[in-house]
Amino acid sequence: MLAKIHVTLKDGVLDTQGKAVHHALNDLGYEEVQGVNLGKYVEVQLDGLSQAEAEDRVREMCQKLLANPVIESYRFTLDSQE
Amino acid sequence: MLAKIHVTLKDGVLDTQGKAVHHALNDLGYEEVQGVNLGKYVEVQLDGLSQAEAEDRVREMCQKLLANPVIESYRFTLDSQE
Repeated sequence: MLAKIHVTLKDGVLDTQGKAVHHALNDLGYEEVQGVNLGKYVEVQLDGLSQAEAEDRVREMCQKLLANPVIESYRFTLDSQE
Repeated sequence: MLAKIHVTLKDGVLDTQGKAVHHALNDLGYEEVQGVNLGKYVEVQLDGLSQAEAEDRVREMCQKLLANPVIESYRFTLDSQE
């Protein structure tokens, strides 16, 4: 099973990397860019779990290691095909 | 329009961050984890472009700034609702 996890900064947390990329894109001539948010994308390959077990375990992994719950939120999908 | 961009390492490029997270998860007791890949997730808010223009511009942004085409691949979707 493949867990596809997105970790992004919570609303209201200053996204300094996003701002830097935003300015860089504007400087390169992409004036149409109005905002940039930068996050992490994590794929975790899991073995031998049911869908329900995997959901619980991946949620735990996000809270313990993959995201900083103070400033980041996460969401994930589970893909049983891969 | 909102461009949702995923930037990941190409196959065959050593993912040292992914390996570190993989080992950390195993050490935390998540023995079911078989592999981890780490990538970037970028959201770019665009103004005043058609779907076709946006597609060309975002592809350019990826090649010039958001991804390193030597070692990274990218894919994106355009969401006109947001």
